[in-house]
Amino acid sequence: MEVVHTIADLQSRIKAYRRRNDQAVGFVPTMGFLHEGHASLMNKARSQCGLVVLSIFVNPLQFGPGEDFERYPRDAERDLAVAEAAGVDLVFMPSVSEMYPSPTRTTVSVSDVTTRLCGASRPGHFDGVATVVSKLFHIVQPDQAFFGLKDAQQVAVIEQMVQDLNMPIEIVPCPTLREADGLAMSSRNVYLSPEERQQALVLSQSLQIAKEYIQSKSSQGFTSTELASLVRAHIETAPLAVVDYAEVLSYPTLEPFDHSHSISSLIIALAVKFGKTRLIDNLILQVRK
Amino acid sequence: MEVVHTIADLQSRIKAYRRRNDQAVGFVPTMGFLHEGHASLMNKARSQCGLVVLSIFVNPLQFGPGEDFERYPRDAERDLAVAEAAGVDLVFMPSVSEMYPSPTRTTVSVSDVTTRLCGASRPGHFDGVATVVSKLFHIVQPDQAFFGLKDAQQVAVIEQMVQDLNMPIEIVPCPTLREADGLAMSSRNVYLSPEERQQALVLSQSLQIAKEYIQSKSSQGFTSTELASLVRAHIETAPLAVVDYAEVLSYPTLEPFDHSHSISSLIIALAVKFGKTRLIDNLILQVRK
Repeated sequence: MEVVHTIADLQSRIKAYRRRNDQAVGFVPTMGFLHEGHASLMNKARSQCGLVVLSIFVNPLQFGPGEDFERYPRDAERDLAVAEAAGVDLVFMPSVSEMYPSPTRTTVSVSDVTTRLCGASRPGHFDGVATVVSKLFHIVQPDQAFFGLKDAQQVAVIEQMVQDLNMPIEIVPCPTLREADGLAMSSRNVYLSPEERQQALVLSQSLQIAKEYIQSKSSQGFTSTELASLVRAHIETAPLAVVDYAEVLSYPTLEPFDHSHSISSLIIALAVKFGKTRLIDNLILQVRK
Repeated sequence: MEVVHTIADLQSRIKAYRRRNDQAVGFVPTMGFLHEGHASLMNKARSQCGLVVLSIFVNPLQFGPGEDFERYPRDAERDLAVAEAAGVDLVFMPSVSEMYPSPTRTTVSVSDVTTRLCGASRPGHFDGVATVVSKLFHIVQPDQAFFGLKDAQQVAVIEQMVQDLNMPIEIVPCPTLREADGLAMSSRNVYLSPEERQQALVLSQSLQIAKEYIQSKSSQGFTSTELASLVRAHIETAPLAVVDYAEVLSYPTLEPFDHSHSISSLIIALAVKFGKTRLIDNLILQVRK
């Protein structure tokens, strides 16, 4: 495994690989502090691609004022061990000035799918995501890029961008990984106090409750409003939980729906704060029509 | 020369070329109704690249409401003859639905260099340009792309986008071509009545006057305001001319400057309406400091 810090070094290595090989180049963009969820993306890339490139870059552009850019957890040494174990070939760890040598004047914006959920809670966040992913895609020029569905709206944004801008890249969405007790894996879980960590189980529990409710109602149908209320009510049983949003939308269009809409998939999406820590989770379900 | 109408057909041909050749792929994006200015871009591409790709696409996204999208001049047959004569290998002529199968939700925006000139006169224009050029770059994946400096602000926007988004493409700006009497070549010149065509000479004349003024003042210096006034005064000697803008800015940053700024290049940029027809022209000058 090689670790490079500059765009020039990365590109010369990928170019050399491309000259000698016809196999796909797979790319896993991350913000580091890698956990098993990230490792599952690297494993997937390893199984499908000849060259696996991992990027570790905490992108200031996608953090709003007052968000956790400065304190976002970082551990380069452990990250490199995780990457090595997952069979990554090339790790790209650029500095902020390597990625933004001058303030960027170019922004990639995706509308509609960014109207709700984190797009509403974190203004500018998805512009920052789309812009940096666009940069990374141009730098790496992968055949496939792997993203975790814990950030389902991010996946929808990237897929929309790739489709609209004709980017020659296949996006591979990968399932959310969970701790044994159900908590979705996230780099931000380390922020939680033991008490918050315990109460944070209401996120995955509420999704499970929603799933069972849908199954029990399969013959009569259900409304997105009653489903959202059910989820919110369970989250609010945790005294430390402050709901940012708990919504039921069509997927991947991320729009409200009712019985008059014929949708094929829905998402139950949650963002909940415990103290200063904001956690997200979701469940995507096929709807039988 | 081959003519293709779909992205899939274009890409299979470029891919086949790349497999057998190491030479550069050159790209000339146009809106058609080709004139000698366009031909000079194709000639330049021919001299530098192994494969020359021309696109002809009148992009609705870069026309505002009330602008001339519908009546923009089109002549596919003559365009193909011009392309063939210039040694183009591959012409891409997509339909609007091939380029935009559904309404695009993704926009590429460039700030700062779009604040003034056509960016101010034509809101949304450069978003449309940056977005479609981004799409075309991803579709063609050229090594070099050729743009005419008659659209100097467009060149500045594309260069900024390529730099900010790390697009792996070299932008080659090419000089404006002029008719024998000085009028800058433009597809829109066909709109002009004989009287308007005659009076439109004030554009290039005013740039010439400005150039001579700068040369005469080289020892004393000059202000951008006096230069802009001089240019505007000459344009207004044409009874049919309505000045949209006549500005003197730094180049390629396109910002106002005065004696306290140390600039290396300036642009004198004009947009003038004759009836419904809007013409632009400019002169870029190195400034001795």
